[in-house]
Amino acid sequence: MTEEVQGILNEVLRRVKPGKDEERKLSSAADKVLNLLSGLDAEVHGSFRKGTWLKGDTDVDVFVFFPKEMGKEGIKDRGLALIHERLSKLNTRLAYAEHPYLIVEVDGVEIDVVPALRVDRGDQAITAVDRTPFHTKYVEGKLNEDGRDQVRILKRFLKGIGVYGAEIRVMGFSGYVSELLTIYYGSFLKVLEGSSKWRERNLIVLEGMEREFDSPLIIPDPVDPRRNAAAAVSLKSLSTFSIASRAFLRSPSLNFFFPRPPEGQEVQGEVIVTEVKLNEPYVDDVLWGQLRRTAEKVRNSLTSAGFKVMDIGICQGETVKILVQLETSKVGEFFLSQGPPFYLEQALSFVDANDKVWVGEDGRLYTLRRRKQLSPERVILESISLKYAHTVSQYTLQEAEGNCERSFLRKTPTWLK
Amino acid sequence: MTEEVQGILNEVLRRVKPGKDEERKLSSAADKVLNLLSGLDAEVHGSFRKGTWLKGDTDVDVFVFFPKEMGKEGIKDRGLALIHERLSKLNTRLAYAEHPYLIVEVDGVEIDVVPALRVDRGDQAITAVDRTPFHTKYVEGKLNEDGRDQVRILKRFLKGIGVYGAEIRVMGFSGYVSELLTIYYGSFLKVLEGSSKWRERNLIVLEGMEREFDSPLIIPDPVDPRRNAAAAVSLKSLSTFSIASRAFLRSPSLNFFFPRPPEGQEVQGEVIVTEVKLNEPYVDDVLWGQLRRTAEKVRNSLTSAGFKVMDIGICQGETVKILVQLETSKVGEFFLSQGPPFYLEQALSFVDANDKVWVGEDGRLYTLRRRKQLSPERVILESISLKYAHTVSQYTLQEAEGNCERSFLRKTPTWLK
Repeated sequence: MTEEVQGILNEVLRRVKPGKDEERKLSSAADKVLNLLSGLDAEVHGSFRKGTWLKGDTDVDVFVFFPKEMGKEGIKDRGLALIHERLSKLNTRLAYAEHPYLIVEVDGVEIDVVPALRVDRGDQAITAVDRTPFHTKYVEGKLNEDGRDQVRILKRFLKGIGVYGAEIRVMGFSGYVSELLTIYYGSFLKVLEGSSKWRERNLIVLEGMEREFDSPLIIPDPVDPRRNAAAAVSLKSLSTFSIASRAFLRSPSLNFFFPRPPEGQEVQGEVIVTEVKLNEPYVDDVLWGQLRRTAEKVRNSLTSAGFKVMDIGICQGETVKILVQLETSKVGEFFLSQGPPFYLEQALSFVDANDKVWVGEDGRLYTLRRRKQLSPERVILESISLKYAHTVSQYTLQEAEGNCERSFLRKTPTWLK
Repeated sequence: MTEEVQGILNEVLRRVKPGKDEERKLSSAADKVLNLLSGLDAEVHGSFRKGTWLKGDTDVDVFVFFPKEMGKEGIKDRGLALIHERLSKLNTRLAYAEHPYLIVEVDGVEIDVVPALRVDRGDQAITAVDRTPFHTKYVEGKLNEDGRDQVRILKRFLKGIGVYGAEIRVMGFSGYVSELLTIYYGSFLKVLEGSSKWRERNLIVLEGMEREFDSPLIIPDPVDPRRNAAAAVSLKSLSTFSIASRAFLRSPSLNFFFPRPPEGQEVQGEVIVTEVKLNEPYVDDVLWGQLRRTAEKVRNSLTSAGFKVMDIGICQGETVKILVQLETSKVGEFFLSQGPPFYLEQALSFVDANDKVWVGEDGRLYTLRRRKQLSPERVILESISLKYAHTVSQYTLQEAEGNCERSFLRKTPTWLK
């Protein structure tokens, strides 16, 4: 490792490694919750417990385990009710992942209190969170102090380039995957060297593999090899990480970890913004699933309608903005449409049914058709498929207002160039 | 055959079968030429000799045969010079097909005087015209008076739908192919029934076949089975004939033989006319070869430049007009360009070389590029590849001036609908 790289990594670590004060503060908040849960089978888990959390990420996971006989449904109602009762003095809020959990605030620290089932082995998990104690144990057994720091550097790198997190908005690398990559390759830099060589399908086996998976990144979970721990990683996130790794190894810079905000940008082509205001509470993962499907549908409908889509982006702030960048918003009133080859039965009915029909050099019939929709805005509106109540407005982007819009117009991420 | 169809075919024959007066006139003109050529091995051939010519097609072929030892080059100079000398009293003009021949005018009749080599069998032909006597003999032996009338009806049908002639402008059915089809199928209507069932590749064997051919229509020449008599027929001409056959059999009409001129037409999309004035003498087949290649190049260049071509047509009058029909003449200033997949060596150089680069959902790099050419007129001009000296002007079609332009805008031929 060159001195330059060492300097950069030291600086990153200085910025992301929590101090003793922060650790004490989180510990004491967690203890308060554990005390309120005394008598229950409660434990701290997650990145705080594993010692891989980033400075300022003040969230701690407390798991409350119930006998597996209680079942998935049991913890959803009885389990959660019991926890709720014990924590009733605190400021609590209900949240949802695969199943509901509680968020409580203690001395400015956010603590997720998650009900789970106590099972004997990772591969006996009934709900997704039942594996957590085994993840904790596995990672604790594999990472020493330096290893934990390497994870922190990697997480910050992934955050910097925008691929940290398994949620649908990101479809990137979870904390656990970051830990597994560090364990597998040995250090942050070795992870980068490894990912520089990734292709469209990559298999990383730490302990064993018990089935086939079809994902860009396959990391059989060491505590439950029937599961792909990296199933959430999209090809786009994987590619972004691989490109970023190569770019960093070629020209190391702090900029990958803490990229500068994008500068103002000229609009190229035409950018139609469809602004969606949500009128009811939503679960982020559910919303983003719908937004991704909407973006795909917008792209297909515009293409069928004769528009050339250059890019589609989604910006989430107080409202959600769907940005559609077209070569131009103008499209011809007529278009060429291909009919059947001359020898098919339906060739004559094609002649009967259409106004302008001719035979092409390829022996197929052709006709000109009038476009049903000349407005790309209408095509976009008709493609929006959100299940949450919402209102929509549209405009053409003249100037980028926020960082998300500027990044969209800039295209090249600031960490890359 | 229904009475209606019989009535139509009778009317066609009435219009296309030459009278005795016409036959006498052509005969006497041919005799004058033969007299001037006395002592030479001269014979009448072509559709006049075979009795399959159409009324008003006042052109007669006289062939002058030379010993095959004289060779291809020999007839081109010595053969032609000899003929020229004999016919020096007549109004003669030099023309070119595979090799030069003379056109002479006698009493208002145009007579093509063609030098050829005398060979013993069709498959010994050295030049294309050496086979002619064998064609004449074959057709004379297979067609009686009614058969010759059937050929005339077929030729008129092919003319009506625009696919008569083997020249490059048409790439259609020659007179000889019309005769072979009639011999093979037995009558005009049976030819239509046969061609109704044609597909993309069709094989019609009258006497035998001695090799494989790759053409939409394969008719091994009965007098020289190494040759495909229908090699000139393009897929487009074949398809047009097949569709026309089915349409006629469904709704018989005189309109197929003598289609009405197209009415005035509204311009759909944008039609750019590139008018080419030729400034030196040209051979039609050579010019049309260049025009067809130009049209193909225009289509490809416009498509690469981001324009959507709906159709391209060529109209030949005093000038040649290349008609290009676009969805719209407007194109965006920028376009989406696909780069390499993330894992390739060149991915980072793509990042270096381009201004706006991002990673797509498919793991490939993308960028926006500025178009080099926003004017479709310029793209067309740059694609014109004519070897003859010419001058060019361009305009946008507002209203169709002639029948060719009207047909181009109408698309559906008037014989079809």
